[in-house]
Amino acid sequence: MNTFGTKFRLTTYGESHGLAVGGIIDGCPSQVRLDMEAIRTDLARRRQGALRQEEDELEWLSGLKDGVTLGTPIAFTIRNKDTRSEDYDPLADCYRPGHADYTYQQKYGLRDHRGGGRASARETVARVVAGAIAKQLIAPVQIHAEMEVSNSSPDLGEVDARRADGGVCDTHGGIVSCRITGLPAGIGEPIFGKLSAQLASAMMSIPSAIGFEMGIGFAAASMKGSEYIDRWNDCLSKDAPATQTIKQSNLPDRKGTALSTAEIKSNPAKNQALTMTNHCGGIQGGISNGMPIEFRVAFHPVVTLPQPVECLTADGGLRTLQISGRHDRCQVPRAAVVVEAMAAMVIADYLLVNR
Amino acid sequence: MNTFGTKFRLTTYGESHGLAVGGIIDGCPSQVRLDMEAIRTDLARRRQGALRQEEDELEWLSGLKDGVTLGTPIAFTIRNKDTRSEDYDPLADCYRPGHADYTYQQKYGLRDHRGGGRASARETVARVVAGAIAKQLIAPVQIHAEMEVSNSSPDLGEVDARRADGGVCDTHGGIVSCRITGLPAGIGEPIFGKLSAQLASAMMSIPSAIGFEMGIGFAAASMKGSEYIDRWNDCLSKDAPATQTIKQSNLPDRKGTALSTAEIKSNPAKNQALTMTNHCGGIQGGISNGMPIEFRVAFHPVVTLPQPVECLTADGGLRTLQISGRHDRCQVPRAAVVVEAMAAMVIADYLLVNR
Amino acid sequence: MNTFGTKFRLTTYGESHGLAVGGIIDGCPSQVRLDMEAIRTDLARRRQGALRQEEDELEWLSGLKDGVTLGTPIAFTIRNKDTRSEDYDPLADCYRPGHADYTYQQKYGLRDHRGGGRASARETVARVVAGAIAKQLIAPVQIHAEMEVSNSSPDLGEVDARRADGGVCDTHGGIVSCRITGLPAGIGEPIFGKLSAQLASAMMSIPSAIGFEMGIGFAAASMKGSEYIDRWNDCLSKDAPATQTIKQSNLPDRKGTALSTAEIKSNPAKNQALTMTNHCGGIQGGISNGMPIEFRVAFHPVVTLPQPVECLTADGGLRTLQISGRHDRCQVPRAAVVVEAMAAMVIADYLLVNR
Amino acid sequence: MNTFGTKFRLTTYGESHGLAVGGIIDGCPSQVRLDMEAIRTDLARRRQGALRQEEDELEWLSGLKDGVTLGTPIAFTIRNKDTRSEDYDPLADCYRPGHADYTYQQKYGLRDHRGGGRASARETVARVVAGAIAKQLIAPVQIHAEMEVSNSSPDLGEVDARRADGGVCDTHGGIVSCRITGLPAGIGEPIFGKLSAQLASAMMSIPSAIGFEMGIGFAAASMKGSEYIDRWNDCLSKDAPATQTIKQSNLPDRKGTALSTAEIKSNPAKNQALTMTNHCGGIQGGISNGMPIEFRVAFHPVVTLPQPVECLTADGGLRTLQISGRHDRCQVPRAAVVVEAMAAMVIADYLLVNR
Repeated sequence: MNTFGTKFRLTTYGESHGLAVGGIIDGCPSQVRLDMEAIRTDLARRRQGALRQEEDELEWLSGLKDGVTLGTPIAFTIRNKDTRSEDYDPLADCYRPGHADYTYQQKYGLRDHRGGGRASARETVARVVAGAIAKQLIAPVQIHAEMEVSNSSPDLGEVDARRADGGVCDTHGGIVSCRITGLPAGIGEPIFGKLSAQLASAMMSIPSAIGFEMGIGFAAASMKGSEYIDRWNDCLSKDAPATQTIKQSNLPDRKGTALSTAEIKSNPAKNQALTMTNHCGGIQGGISNGMPIEFRVAFHPVVTLPQPVECLTADGGLRTLQISGRHDRCQVPRAAVVVEAMAAMVIADYLLVNR
Repeated sequence: MNTFGTKFRLTTYGESHGLAVGGIIDGCPSQVRLDMEAIRTDLARRRQGALRQEEDELEWLSGLKDGVTLGTPIAFTIRNKDTRSEDYDPLADCYRPGHADYTYQQKYGLRDHRGGGRASARETVARVVAGAIAKQLIAPVQIHAEMEVSNSSPDLGEVDARRADGGVCDTHGGIVSCRITGLPAGIGEPIFGKLSAQLASAMMSIPSAIGFEMGIGFAAASMKGSEYIDRWNDCLSKDAPATQTIKQSNLPDRKGTALSTAEIKSNPAKNQALTMTNHCGGIQGGISNGMPIEFRVAFHPVVTLPQPVECLTADGGLRTLQISGRHDRCQVPRAAVVVEAMAAMVIADYLLVNR
Repeated sequence: MNTFGTKFRLTTYGESHGLAVGGIIDGCPSQVRLDMEAIRTDLARRRQGALRQEEDELEWLSGLKDGVTLGTPIAFTIRNKDTRSEDYDPLADCYRPGHADYTYQQKYGLRDHRGGGRASARETVARVVAGAIAKQLIAPVQIHAEMEVSNSSPDLGEVDARRADGGVCDTHGGIVSCRITGLPAGIGEPIFGKLSAQLASAMMSIPSAIGFEMGIGFAAASMKGSEYIDRWNDCLSKDAPATQTIKQSNLPDRKGTALSTAEIKSNPAKNQALTMTNHCGGIQGGISNGMPIEFRVAFHPVVTLPQPVECLTADGGLRTLQISGRHDRCQVPRAAVVVEAMAAMVIADYLLVNR
Repeated sequence: MNTFGTKFRLTTYGESHGLAVGGIIDGCPSQVRLDMEAIRTDLARRRQGALRQEEDELEWLSGLKDGVTLGTPIAFTIRNKDTRSEDYDPLADCYRPGHADYTYQQKYGLRDHRGGGRASARETVARVVAGAIAKQLIAPVQIHAEMEVSNSSPDLGEVDARRADGGVCDTHGGIVSCRITGLPAGIGEPIFGKLSAQLASAMMSIPSAIGFEMGIGFAAASMKGSEYIDRWNDCLSKDAPATQTIKQSNLPDRKGTALSTAEIKSNPAKNQALTMTNHCGGIQGGISNGMPIEFRVAFHPVVTLPQPVECLTADGGLRTLQISGRHDRCQVPRAAVVVEAMAAMVIADYLLVNR
């Protein structure tokens, strides 16, 4: 429920306005020297442009000795400091539209209404920490996600300008596209453990995610088969090593150190020319084919509007409230690093399980 | 890997041209009298229009006594009869484009090349059996999925006519939309166990699935917050019972019988008027809000083309082959019942876990 | 690995001489008001007579509001204060006999040698916290464990007197017997999920545990069937309600509150007269029969001897060392509360899963 | 519940007098050529001296091609042939003492009373099949279990003679001791995943198991520390390779083939001289130290007595019945191969997870 992963496992905890958020990473191999700066960089990406600006001071409680992993659980804590819980007093007995207030109340019979409690996106800070470690673990595999910018995208600079002006009027969503390179072929599981299914689950677990597609995605539904199929690249035969050989060289051969040094020596130049297009997004039958893994995640707009909204009260009535907590106008730029984090944990898990 | 679910668990087995396919359902409550006709009906829906026409003769090996569940594992087997394995001989040492031939070979070092082996959609027959049982278990909850028909959809009648004519030229994909009604509010888990995340994983595990979206999905990415948010229905206050009361009455109160009789007495009329729109698809923060659950699944076109295609050989060359196995031109109408089956298993699992 | 349980789940972390030990409890129902005093009492029992006397100051990081559970993960931390890590310097490159130094080094390639690191019994403090909460959850079910005292048991008072005298001579083990009363019949799972198997696993996971037996245990191996079998109590028929009725009244009927109030209204007087003896320890076929659950756990002696011992060095030699860390002479009296904690978590898990 | 293992997973099904018993093995690596004769031999060991003599005709439904594993689920079925269900008619509404009749009824509200249904030891046939495959997977690791014979053991030949004579009088239990050799050091998990805890759970899941101990077990509870501790063997330093080196050579280095060929090249002669005694049974802190793994399992006597017994009726009364099904007088000789099977699955699982 609050645990993600099979072998590289993250368990998170923490309410938005409680004492702290954090997590335990279980299953991280021993003897990995952590790059703390890289973790801080990802945390900073998650904070970019946020109205609630906390420094995210990480405290490592266990699992490390002199910055090197012991193989034991890595526990970390980030204290909540910049909370203005009194902003949320009016919400104690009513439910905002678009939020999880009502559903949490239905499920648990009570909730911490301050700042969204457990349902707040504050929780993703723990994912970013674990994801930053997972990235280091799988290092030759590279993950890059970013918000797509198109004609229909909001001009966030303009949005922010208007907000500074007091003239804000609305919120926005968007799409994050993600690309994973350097992953060898043969990673994944068939049937219910498909790599695509795990990525879908990981991405849809991010707050505000509302859609997921691999490769060309929904557009494939209206293509013809002859257009859709990714054809083999005919220059493969020229100097290609036998495919089986490619695979063997990619296999983990050591334990107790980062996967990065020896385990994933893929041949990206070769693999990434396997097919002439990549409509399937690099996964066939749930298993990677060595091409880049490509997928997109749709996020709905921020559900805290700047204007007053009608809230549902516990006795079934409506009450108009101006929600005064600090909320972004568009969370998608910040979501990109969370997409990367979840992808990194998925890949780390498969690589550890598929050793 | 080959197991789906936490408490209502299906483990499947079987290669397309092996001796049999089937599964074990573990965690089905005792004392449920199975409606065998309903199971046969769903199996027939999965076969509709298929070129490989097997009767899907189910043999129940355990877990039932006089058609009533014992609470012990329900094992079932469906023998493969209508196999023409010799059609696949040319594929023993080469990999079709668009299929999982190459990735299975990379992962396992060998494969059963006949009819796609384990990667064949033949495997979904076990899902349909388990899904048909799950539907009975959650009976007041209704699940309906169907292929969407639009201007861009293929006219399958015409396709079929051309195929009969020998004039076929291409294959098609499509979109299945699914709607779950009668599910009470408060079902789901937060964070990594979100109902939406589980549905995404379940759907993306279906062969040929390439995209998933809740509610209004990708369209939400370009909406403004004020357009997107589902407003509370203001007629709720009129005669609404306290929401907490609604929930209590929906809770399971007996064990050892189908969930249907007493456990899910939702108040659909009331719940389904909770919000004025349902852009979020009935799930907030990973937990159902009592509105219908609505989602869509995109399927790419059938990857076995009627015309000859270039296959990759084990030594890295290309070979042009005419694949002679029997393959549909569009699998999406048949996929609808598989979507229902997976949805039913997800819902059954949550209801059993959330009792 | 560092997680215990299915639905009531404890994940622990922490090295003996690291910054902190602690854990996350996931799956505890909401709306349970915790008795903090009871938790402190169990922590004090775990400390009784220990040479390392830390106050075990608990900090609750999440999952509670005003002392009531939210249904979200309960994270807690206990800082390590009374560490004398320098005592362990000589152990950096050699392995004590009887300890896990060598096996941890083999598994992880490195270890935190200070105070036993993760392998230290210090880790059990997190179990005691979670167990104390589990006990409250299952309240009408009572769990009592204690060290058995027999002619062959060490006189710990005398041991302690000699130790104070500087005249230490040796260390001791012992047996903890445990009795669980008030558990209704029908709790457990068959085959691999037997209640007896889960209890065995839970108990053997406690540091220094070396044996486990249900009921009459090893003695049963040399009994005849006619002596062993627990005969039905013939006074049952007098005023017995139908057994099915007994069961129904024991079933959970509410969610979101402690199990204690309504869920486990067993009829101990009746159930505990079910059979005339209880050689099987209250479990048949892996499922409780309503009689008290009775089992015993054997603990080997403390493996840190007061006298100098030969340690294995990393290069395969031997080195005689006097281990100067503070170590008990007999850990068994302190282990009783850990046995209770593990038993309580097992029972809480089954009751939540079997709702 | 009916699934055992994490990566090498067995799910079993089947009632004693139903159509069939069997299972699905998921997670067995690909490219393992199965020795079918070895599987039959273990099945024959399980049948030895049994009154119910079925040939255990195995049908393999999936996962194999030409006797080689595909990496996909291996499903197998054994039809029940030699059933005399009418023997059990009197048991439809009453519960034998010592059996799981009553507890199954309490848990499920109904049961298949014929031959013990799912609770029958008939279920262990699936364990033996999976265990025989696991043994082949871990081949250099050897597992041997047998019934201990002592002065207090029953003379089974004499028992059998009396039975043939019509002069039967009672049933017996006994102890199985098991020894695993060739397992390298460093295998296992700490805290809740201790190898000793998993073995305990596996063994206590066998029908009639009532006690488990590692190494010297319960006897350790009354030893002094100086007697108990296993001292390092001082001849280790002579020609010992560095311990780390020993470990590296034992690590898996290939995937997709049996573990046997390359993965477990232990150095038993060296490892098995690590300590001068083996009181701990080869496991420290939950992790193997390279010495033989040694444990014992106590089985209570067969609970079906040859003489009439008083059964509990559904309405709380007692009824004297002569149980006429065919039952062994002592199941322990047959249990040895089940102990081996469970041990082999535990070891295979750890080796696959710890790769």
